[in-house]
Amino acid sequence: MSKVLIYSRFPKAMLARIGERYELLDSKGQRFTEVFPAAQLSDVQALISAGGTALGADAMDALPALKAIVCYGTGYDGVDLRAAAERGIVVGNSPAANAAAVADLAMTLMLAVTRNLLPADRYVRSGDWAAAKPSPLMRPQPGNPGRRIGVYGMGEIGRKIAARAAAFETEVAYYSRSRHDVPYRYLPSLEALAEWCDVLMVAVRAGADTHHIVDAAMLRRLGPEGYLINISRGSAVDEQALIAALTDKTIAGAGLDVFETEPRQPDALTAFPNVVLTPHVGGHTTESHVAMQDCVMANLDAFFAGKALPYPVPLGSGQRV
Amino acid sequence: MSKVLIYSRFPKAMLARIGERYELLDSKGQRFTEVFPAAQLSDVQALISAGGTALGADAMDALPALKAIVCYGTGYDGVDLRAAAERGIVVGNSPAANAAAVADLAMTLMLAVTRNLLPADRYVRSGDWAAAKPSPLMRPQPGNPGRRIGVYGMGEIGRKIAARAAAFETEVAYYSRSRHDVPYRYLPSLEALAEWCDVLMVAVRAGADTHHIVDAAMLRRLGPEGYLINISRGSAVDEQALIAALTDKTIAGAGLDVFETEPRQPDALTAFPNVVLTPHVGGHTTESHVAMQDCVMANLDAFFAGKALPYPVPLGSGQRV
Repeated sequence: MSKVLIYSRFPKAMLARIGERYELLDSKGQRFTEVFPAAQLSDVQALISAGGTALGADAMDALPALKAIVCYGTGYDGVDLRAAAERGIVVGNSPAANAAAVADLAMTLMLAVTRNLLPADRYVRSGDWAAAKPSPLMRPQPGNPGRRIGVYGMGEIGRKIAARAAAFETEVAYYSRSRHDVPYRYLPSLEALAEWCDVLMVAVRAGADTHHIVDAAMLRRLGPEGYLINISRGSAVDEQALIAALTDKTIAGAGLDVFETEPRQPDALTAFPNVVLTPHVGGHTTESHVAMQDCVMANLDAFFAGKALPYPVPLGSGQRV
Repeated sequence: MSKVLIYSRFPKAMLARIGERYELLDSKGQRFTEVFPAAQLSDVQALISAGGTALGADAMDALPALKAIVCYGTGYDGVDLRAAAERGIVVGNSPAANAAAVADLAMTLMLAVTRNLLPADRYVRSGDWAAAKPSPLMRPQPGNPGRRIGVYGMGEIGRKIAARAAAFETEVAYYSRSRHDVPYRYLPSLEALAEWCDVLMVAVRAGADTHHIVDAAMLRRLGPEGYLINISRGSAVDEQALIAALTDKTIAGAGLDVFETEPRQPDALTAFPNVVLTPHVGGHTTESHVAMQDCVMANLDAFFAGKALPYPVPLGSGQRV
């Protein structure tokens, strides 16, 4: 069996199927160079990473035989694509395999935060409802019909979010670098979208150009009735600015599946009642994992057979082919 | 100003607008006969009730001048329509005014419970994610694409649930006493629907014929991968059978906005991690309250002007006109 290094932390069950065909070297979240002796790493030709995990030239150079980086999931923003290209390392991902699951979670977060679902459940379970205890969090909130949903990014995930949101009798608009052939209004900038919308859905592919693109000024545009939903990458949002905006009620609330530093979050963030937080589980459904594993297997099988990756990271993302 | 008795418990803000035009006698959840002397009640011609609150002949007879019962909301299942008809009391409601809000909450409950949203949020906030603590509740669950959604009841709310659910790439079918002109598969019985579906959405109008219609046998048909969502009335579900089904994993989970005895719930129910509970807030959005108040005002204004109610409880529900 060919050796494959597990570069990020993955639950065992997630990789069990791949482990039937490959010998997996799993450092379980520790630095692989500290877990495995150099001799054992010298012939590792392929690794599996979560695309958001930082993977730079140093790591590549610790694996002299490395020729393939296979990302489990859609993202590959943690991979230094230039460094990989310079070393003749191909990079693959699992495009669109998790789009429905991620879009579903975006909607779940939006509906939960705008309807105060977590405080509502606590209100029932604590007995406060039975005691008719007044709760400011139980005040009626605006509903969906006519609500303006701004989708930032019109890839597979953005499209699926837009289609779902529209079914709730909302108005949907989007911003993306380029216009797409979709039945939603296009706004010319993220600023214009944030200004227009009541809910800003961040579904953009993360990268250096989107780092902290949702900052203090953008949150002010979203405004006191506005909600931020992020299922993309934590890096797209300036988390300190978000904490400040939640503290001084510059925005109404947030639903976040991703964070700047995972799996740790600032205490200031986890203390808000008007946020819903999930542990980066956007793509975390059984079907979505099967689909992502299919992509990972197909990429590994092709690579070890000396063929081109069926799911390469797209051209123009810095990778030479 | 004409006197109007507030028969159920409503937050003050909810009735403020109506209070500008009518003199509201509000017993704040206590028995009105204990709060107001008979002399003060002798000329009350109209009352406002939450339709689910029991309102029988006794209460009517304590109000000798009563000629109109106006329900705030869609339901009127608590009103003894025969007793009202015998006394020449007209009954009105707020049809469809809250349908979008209720359907939205049904979807919120479904998405939250099937994605384990509450345990996920706790997993982040407790620091268990940061500590990489394993959690069985964080295992991937089946996603929406291909999921079978069974809608029980095809009124305004059922239709809106179906339209929303379909946008999540699900299959939607329904059962209702009669077939409707809708693009969803019709199943000939609730038994067949429960057998077929993965998520059973109870959106039926409550009444004597639907009392405990979701019982132990129905929950067995729903099965161990199945979820129950109820945004209709607590009486439609045998709550003790539901608790038993959740205890022995006959079904996978439940999302409930309504309960057999509100606002109290059995401790056995509030202890489950795989349920999401909300305090009967289906119609609880700002727009929906405005729309329901519009109906209440229109009914009261017409009644006091000696005209027919614009929003009477439908014929065939036992009311003479």
